[in-house]
Amino acid sequence: MGISNRMRGIPASPIRKLTPYANEAKKRGIKVYHINIGQPDIKTPPDALKKVKNFNKEVLKYSQSDGIFDLKKSMTDYFNNLHYNINPKNIIVTNGGSEAIYFSFMVSMDTKDEVLIPEPYYANYNGFAKMADVNVKPIETNVENGFKLPSYEKLESYISGKTKAILMCSPNNPTGTVHEKGDYKKIAKLAQKYDLTVIGDEVYNEFVYDNAEHVSVMEFEEIKDRTILIDSVSKRYSACGARIGAFITKNKNYIDAVMSLAQARLCPPTLEQVLAAELYRTDRTYIKNAKNEYRKRRDIVYEELNKIDGIVAHKPSGAFYTVVKLPIDDTEKFAKWLLTDFEENKETVMVAPASGFYASDNRGKNEIRIAYILEEKNMRRSIQLLKKAIEVYNN
Amino acid sequence: MGISNRMRGIPASPIRKLTPYANEAKKRGIKVYHINIGQPDIKTPPDALKKVKNFNKEVLKYSQSDGIFDLKKSMTDYFNNLHYNINPKNIIVTNGGSEAIYFSFMVSMDTKDEVLIPEPYYANYNGFAKMADVNVKPIETNVENGFKLPSYEKLESYISGKTKAILMCSPNNPTGTVHEKGDYKKIAKLAQKYDLTVIGDEVYNEFVYDNAEHVSVMEFEEIKDRTILIDSVSKRYSACGARIGAFITKNKNYIDAVMSLAQARLCPPTLEQVLAAELYRTDRTYIKNAKNEYRKRRDIVYEELNKIDGIVAHKPSGAFYTVVKLPIDDTEKFAKWLLTDFEENKETVMVAPASGFYASDNRGKNEIRIAYILEEKNMRRSIQLLKKAIEVYNN
Repeated sequence: MGISNRMRGIPASPIRKLTPYANEAKKRGIKVYHINIGQPDIKTPPDALKKVKNFNKEVLKYSQSDGIFDLKKSMTDYFNNLHYNINPKNIIVTNGGSEAIYFSFMVSMDTKDEVLIPEPYYANYNGFAKMADVNVKPIETNVENGFKLPSYEKLESYISGKTKAILMCSPNNPTGTVHEKGDYKKIAKLAQKYDLTVIGDEVYNEFVYDNAEHVSVMEFEEIKDRTILIDSVSKRYSACGARIGAFITKNKNYIDAVMSLAQARLCPPTLEQVLAAELYRTDRTYIKNAKNEYRKRRDIVYEELNKIDGIVAHKPSGAFYTVVKLPIDDTEKFAKWLLTDFEENKETVMVAPASGFYASDNRGKNEIRIAYILEEKNMRRSIQLLKKAIEVYNN
Repeated sequence: MGISNRMRGIPASPIRKLTPYANEAKKRGIKVYHINIGQPDIKTPPDALKKVKNFNKEVLKYSQSDGIFDLKKSMTDYFNNLHYNINPKNIIVTNGGSEAIYFSFMVSMDTKDEVLIPEPYYANYNGFAKMADVNVKPIETNVENGFKLPSYEKLESYISGKTKAILMCSPNNPTGTVHEKGDYKKIAKLAQKYDLTVIGDEVYNEFVYDNAEHVSVMEFEEIKDRTILIDSVSKRYSACGARIGAFITKNKNYIDAVMSLAQARLCPPTLEQVLAAELYRTDRTYIKNAKNEYRKRRDIVYEELNKIDGIVAHKPSGAFYTVVKLPIDDTEKFAKWLLTDFEENKETVMVAPASGFYASDNRGKNEIRIAYILEEKNMRRSIQLLKKAIEVYNN
C-alpha cells in the first residue's frame, strides 16, 4: 500500500537523524552535551505550574476554539505593556507557535504561492510550507556580516508574481540575529508595494542583549492590516511542553478565516491554557533573570569560540542560538563523528549541522547551529570539546 | 489587504452560528438545555486528573514528537486488551483525534483526491479536507433505514479515478449508527480492489448498546497494511479538553511519513499526555458506568421522541447522538427560533440543525442532531420542550 506522493521522500531532519547516534554514545557511557536543541534548562515559573495543580473542575471540557478568555486577556495585557495596542479579539490561541505559523501560511497564500524568508531559517517552516502546499523562497544572509538583511533593491529582486508573504523571525532562530528598525522599514515598503502579508515570528522577543532592541512587526502603522504576529510561551517562560502559542493580527478578515480552521480542531488543550494564562502574568523579574542568564552563556560561547582557529562566528544579539562556520567541509559528517568516534574523558558534544536551516542547495554545509541553553560550566565545556574535536578531526 | 482564495467564503458552522442567540436567550433569563454539542457531563476519571496535580518536574519540556512512551504503552495495553495486536511503534500521539484525521488525509491522498464518507458525517471532516486540499464524496445513508451502508454495488458506484480513501466513523457521530461486520467486509473488498486507504474514526468504540457490537477496522487482516485507526480520549474518558488522540496503523510507511508532520509541530502537550497515560489505564468499571448512563439517556430520548407526531427517528445503537427528521421544513430557522422566540416556563432547548452534517445540497434540511449528554431529568425535559416547540412552531 503506497502513500500519497506529497508525503514521499521528505528528507529526515539532519538534526533528528543524529539522535540514534547520541543514544548509542550514551549507552557506551559517554556524556553528551546537548547544544543541538532549543530546550532551555531554566525553570518554568512555579506559580504557573501551581495553577494547574489547583485546577479543580471535575470535567475537563472543551474550551472556546480561539482560546480561554482569561488567557486571551492575559496575553493582551502582556502585549499592551509592550505598547502593541491589541485586544482579545485580535488573538487566536494555538497549539504552540507551530500551529500559528501554519495558520498564517494558510490565510496569506494559496497553493504554490511563495513566502520569502531570510536564510538560514527555522527548519520547521518547511514542514508547514509542505502542509499548506506553498513554497519558501530563501533570502540569502551570511555569517560574515552577522546575517543582516540585504538592501531594499536586493530584497525586491526576490519578489515574483507568486510572492504573497514575507516571514521575519527576530530575534532569529538559528542565527541569534536581531533585525533592526531599518530592516522593517524596508519590509514594510516592500509589503505595501507588492501586497504582501508580513508574518513576524517573535517568540524570542524578550531575549535581546547589549544595545540591541527588539523591533516588532506590530509597530508599523502602515502595515497593520497585513501583519500577523506569532507568539509562544515555549521559550520566554521555558514551557516548551505546554504547546501554547498565538496567532495575533489586527486584520479581522484573517481572524475570521483562521477561526474556521481553529473550529475544525475544536480547541487548544485546556489545562495548558490554564497554565499559560498565568505564564503571561509572570513577574518581569523572571524574564530579566532568564535574559541575563542567556546573555552570560552567550558571552561564554563567544569567548570560547574565538579560541578556535579557522572559524567564522558573529556575536549574536538575541535569542539563544548562533550559527558558526567551521574549518570543516561537511558538518553533517562531523556532527555524526562527534557522537560515534570522538570523546575526551568520556565526554562529547552534540551540535546541529546547519544545512537543515538552508533551503538553497549546498549552503550551510560547513556551518553548525549552537544553542546556548546549558548553564555556564557545561556551556564552556561544550565549546572546549568542540575545539578539541575540530583539532582531532582535521588531523 | 485580502486573504488567500482558499480561505474565502467558508460557510460559518450552522451550529456555531447559533451560539450568539443562545447567549442572548440566557441574558433574557431563559434556561437553555444544550443537546446541540457532544460535550459530556460525565466526570473525567479523578485518578487521572490527580496525576497531573502530582506532576513535579521543574521544567515543562518538549516530549517526543510521537508522544511520551508511557502514554504509547498505555494506549497499546488498552487496544491489545481489545485484541488489536499493536505495539507502541504503530502509534503517533496527536493533538486530539482532530489532528489524527488531518494526518490520515495528508498521508493517504494527494491534492484534489477524494475520500468517501457515509453521509451525514462529522462536520469537521470538511475542515480537515480543506486543510489537506482533498474532496469529500458523500455516500448517501438515510434515517429511514437507520443510516445503514448501501450494498457493495452501490458503494462501488461512488468510486472514481480520484478516490483514494474511505472513512468509516462507527459508532457514528452524528447518527449513532453502529456499522456491522458485513459492512466492513464490503469496505475491505472495495479497498483492496481500488487500492484505497481505510480510515476508522472509532472514538466512540466503547459506547454500543443492546445487541450491537463494535467492529473495528483493525480486525481485518486483509487490509491491515491500508488501515488507519483514529482514537481520542475526549469521549471515552470525558476529557474533551485534553486534546489527546492517536494516529494508529500497522503500515510503517504511513508512520514514517506522518512522523515528519509530527516533528514539524514538535509534540503534543506534555501535561495532557501525562493525564492521558493514566486515562487509558482507567478501570473498566468507569467505562461500563458511562456506557450504562448513555444507554439510559438514549432510551429516554427515544421514548420521548416517539411521542412527537410526524417525526422519523431510529433507535441509535452507539455513541451518544441521533439524527431525527422533524415535521419542519428548515431546521436552521427552527433552531434559531427555539432560541429567539420560544420558551416554556423560561426554558428552551438548543439543537444542532443537521444540514451541517451533509455535503450534498439540500439534504438534512428537515433533520436535527440530538446529543444525549444530559442527565436523565434534563434529557427528558429537553425532548419534551422540543415536542412543545414543534407544536407551537407549526401552528
